[in-house]
Amino acid sequence: MTVFVFGADGYIGWPLSVRLARELDDEIIGVDNLVTRKLVEEVGGASALPIGSPEQRVNAFRKEYGKSNLKIIVGDLTDGNFVNDLVRKYKPDTVYHLAQQRSAPYSMIDRDHAAYTQINNLLTNLNLLFALRNYSPKAHVVKMGTMGEYGTPGYTIEEGWMNIKYKGKGYRIMIPRDPGSWYHISKVFDTYNLIFANKIWKIRATDVQQGVVYGSRTDDLINDELNTRLDFDGVWGTVMNKYFAQIIAFNKILIYGTGLMKRGFLSLQDSIDCLFILGQKPADEGEYRVVNQMDEIYSTIDLAKRAEKIARKYGFDPEYERVEDPRVEKQKHYYRVSHKTLKKLGFKPRYKMDHVLEQIMQDMMNNAETIRAHAEAIRPAVFWDRTENKIGREYISAINESIIKSSRSYII
Amino acid sequence: MTVFVFGADGYIGWPLSVRLARELDDEIIGVDNLVTRKLVEEVGGASALPIGSPEQRVNAFRKEYGKSNLKIIVGDLTDGNFVNDLVRKYKPDTVYHLAQQRSAPYSMIDRDHAAYTQINNLLTNLNLLFALRNYSPKAHVVKMGTMGEYGTPGYTIEEGWMNIKYKGKGYRIMIPRDPGSWYHISKVFDTYNLIFANKIWKIRATDVQQGVVYGSRTDDLINDELNTRLDFDGVWGTVMNKYFAQIIAFNKILIYGTGLMKRGFLSLQDSIDCLFILGQKPADEGEYRVVNQMDEIYSTIDLAKRAEKIARKYGFDPEYERVEDPRVEKQKHYYRVSHKTLKKLGFKPRYKMDHVLEQIMQDMMNNAETIRAHAEAIRPAVFWDRTENKIGREYISAINESIIKSSRSYII
Repeated sequence: MTVFVFGADGYIGWPLSVRLARELDDEIIGVDNLVTRKLVEEVGGASALPIGSPEQRVNAFRKEYGKSNLKIIVGDLTDGNFVNDLVRKYKPDTVYHLAQQRSAPYSMIDRDHAAYTQINNLLTNLNLLFALRNYSPKAHVVKMGTMGEYGTPGYTIEEGWMNIKYKGKGYRIMIPRDPGSWYHISKVFDTYNLIFANKIWKIRATDVQQGVVYGSRTDDLINDELNTRLDFDGVWGTVMNKYFAQIIAFNKILIYGTGLMKRGFLSLQDSIDCLFILGQKPADEGEYRVVNQMDEIYSTIDLAKRAEKIARKYGFDPEYERVEDPRVEKQKHYYRVSHKTLKKLGFKPRYKMDHVLEQIMQDMMNNAETIRAHAEAIRPAVFWDRTENKIGREYISAINESIIKSSRSYII
Repeated sequence: MTVFVFGADGYIGWPLSVRLARELDDEIIGVDNLVTRKLVEEVGGASALPIGSPEQRVNAFRKEYGKSNLKIIVGDLTDGNFVNDLVRKYKPDTVYHLAQQRSAPYSMIDRDHAAYTQINNLLTNLNLLFALRNYSPKAHVVKMGTMGEYGTPGYTIEEGWMNIKYKGKGYRIMIPRDPGSWYHISKVFDTYNLIFANKIWKIRATDVQQGVVYGSRTDDLINDELNTRLDFDGVWGTVMNKYFAQIIAFNKILIYGTGLMKRGFLSLQDSIDCLFILGQKPADEGEYRVVNQMDEIYSTIDLAKRAEKIARKYGFDPEYERVEDPRVEKQKHYYRVSHKTLKKLGFKPRYKMDHVLEQIMQDMMNNAETIRAHAEAIRPAVFWDRTENKIGREYISAINESIIKSSRSYII
C-alpha cells in the first residue's frame, strides 16, 4: 500500500508522516514545496523548535526507527503535471491532503497574499482531484479543512449536513458556510470542488473540519532531530503559542478584543491520532464523509488564564494587555460543535490539556533566544479592515507578477 | 457619475453598455480583454451575428446616438494593478461586474480549463473588491452570478437567504449552494468573496443570480454594426441558440437525457432592463443585496417544442434526436424560484418569449452560412464524467504553463 502526505514538511504533515511510517509497513511518500519555511521568515517569524531539512529529518527517522519506508519529494503541487506524474507513478491508496497556505492572517496581509492563498490552495486541490480520477480513482482522500468554514452560527454545528424544516417540510442541507478570512474562504472553495468531484467522479473522500491544534510534540518525535515546526509569531502562531511567546518575550499576555471568542481545540497528538484512524478506516467507495475534528471548546480568555497559571509555575508574573482585535469577528457568541464520528471510529484523547501546554512552555523556554530574537513579529500586525498591511512583501511579489504576466501573455 | 462595465465586449456586457450610454449622461467605461472571442474560436464556434471590433462598435454607437459618453478599455482584469489604476483614476459610482469565463462546458473540458475558469473569475473579482475598498469605497457593485449556484433543490429558492427551523428554533441562513460545474463553482467562490468583502469593508453590492438568457437583440441595437455576439456551439451556446442552430445545420433537435431538466429563463432585453434598474436603484450603503433575475421556468423539452413550432413556420421539418446528457445532473426535479425584488423595483418583462425566439431564428437563418461552417461544433463534445475532452487546446496551454512556471519560480 502507498500513502501520500501532501504538505509533509508542515506542522501536522511531518508528525503524521512519521506516525504512518513508524506504525505501518506501507510506503509513505511525503510531498512538499517547503514554502512555509520561507513564508514564516517573510513576516519575521521562525520555528521556536529548531527543525532540520527534510533530508535530515528523514535520515533521523530511518536511524531512530530502523525503517526505510518514508521518503519526502520536494515539489510544487500547484503544478498539475507534477501531480499527475506522482499519482500515475505511485498509484496511492490514501492521500492526506494538507498542502495549503494555512494562515488566516497571512491571507489578510494584502491583495497579493489573498490571491496567493486562494490560488495556491485551489490549484493544489484541483490538481489532486483530476490526477486521482485519471490514475488512482479508488484512492481515499483525507482533506484537511477547518472548523472555520462554518463560522460561529447560533446552532450546534453537526458534521457536514443538517436536517432542517423549511416551510413545514424537512430537508437535509449542507451546513451553511460563513468563513472569516480569505484563507478560510479558500478552504470552502476546496470543499465545494471536492464535493463536486465526488459527485461527478465518485472520488472517495473524508473532509476533516479541524479545530485549532496546539502542542509541540507527539510520542513519535522522540528526539530533537525529529522536531516539527512550532510557530509563535502573530501571523503563523496559533493562540497558545502566541501567549507563551508573549510571556517569554514581554512578560505580557495580549487579549484580542473581548477575549470571549470561542473555538474548538485539540492537541497535536490527538490530531495525528485522528488522521491515522481516518486513513485506516476510510470512507466507503464513492462516499464523501465529513468529520468535525476537535476535542474541547475554549474562549481565548480561558486559554490565557491557563497560560498564565503555567507561566507562574515557571517563575513568570505576566500582565494582561487588551489590544484591538485585528479580526472582524463576533466578540461574543454561542459555540457548540458535534463531533461523534471520530469517537465512533475509536478516537480517544490521550493527554490532558495542561500537560500538553506545559510541554509547549518548556519547549519555548528552552528556545527563548529564538523567541526574543523574533519578538517584533509577535504582536498582531495584520488587520482585517485594511487592504494593505505593511509586512511580508519579500516572496509574494514574484508569484503575483508571474500571474499577471501569464494572463497578459494569454490575451495577446 | 461614472459607470464601469467589466466584460463590456460580452453577450450581455455590450448591450448593457449601449443601454447605459444611450439613456444616461454618465460616463460609461467598458473594460474587456476580448478573450471570449478567442475562446469561442478555440472550440470551433463563432458568433452567428457578425460583430465588429470594440472600436467599430463604439464608433457605431457614437454615430447612431450622437453621444460620446461610451468608451471601451481593452485590458485584463486579472491584473490587480491594472484594476487598481482604473478605479483610482475614474472612481466609479457603479461597477457592473460581468467579466467572467461564463461557460460551464468550457470549464469542464479538462483540468487546465477548470483551473483557468476558476482562477480567472476569482482573481478578477478579488482585484475589484480590493481596488474599490482602496479608491472608491462607496461604489455599488452589481455582480453577475447565476441561478446555477443553487442547483435544483427540492424547495423554492428565495433570494439569498431563507428562514429555517433547526431543532425547533428559527434561523436565517444563506441558501445552500449546489453548483453543477467548475464554472458554477467559480461563481460560488465569487459570492463568498463578495459577502466577506461586504462584511469586513462594507462593500455595497447587488448579487445578481441570473437565469439562462436568450435573445439576439435589444431595442438599442438598432443596426448590424451594433450587434452583440450570438453563440450557438455546444460549448458557448445556450439551449435555444443550440436548438435553432441544430435545426439549420442538421434539421434536428438534440434532446439531452430526459429533457425534463428545468431552469429559469429571461430574455436579453429583460436582463438588460433588470441590470439597468439595479444600477439606478442601488443597494444601500454597506448593504449586500441578492436578486434572483429570471422570468419563467421551462424544461428543455418545453423549449424544444417551441423551437420546433417556430422552425415549422419557416419551412423546416426537424426531427428529435435523443443524446446522452453530457452533464451530471438530476434528470427530473422540482424547480421553483422566488423573484420578487426586481418586480418591486419596477421591472416588467417587455416581450413575449415567442416573439424573441422568432427573432433569434430569423437572425440565425440570415447567417445560416456561418452556422453551417461551424456545424461540427454544435453537438455536445464536453462530458462531465471525463477529465479530458478532446477540444479546445489552442489558447489554454499558454496560461497554464505560466501558472506552473510562476509557482516554480516562486519556490526556488
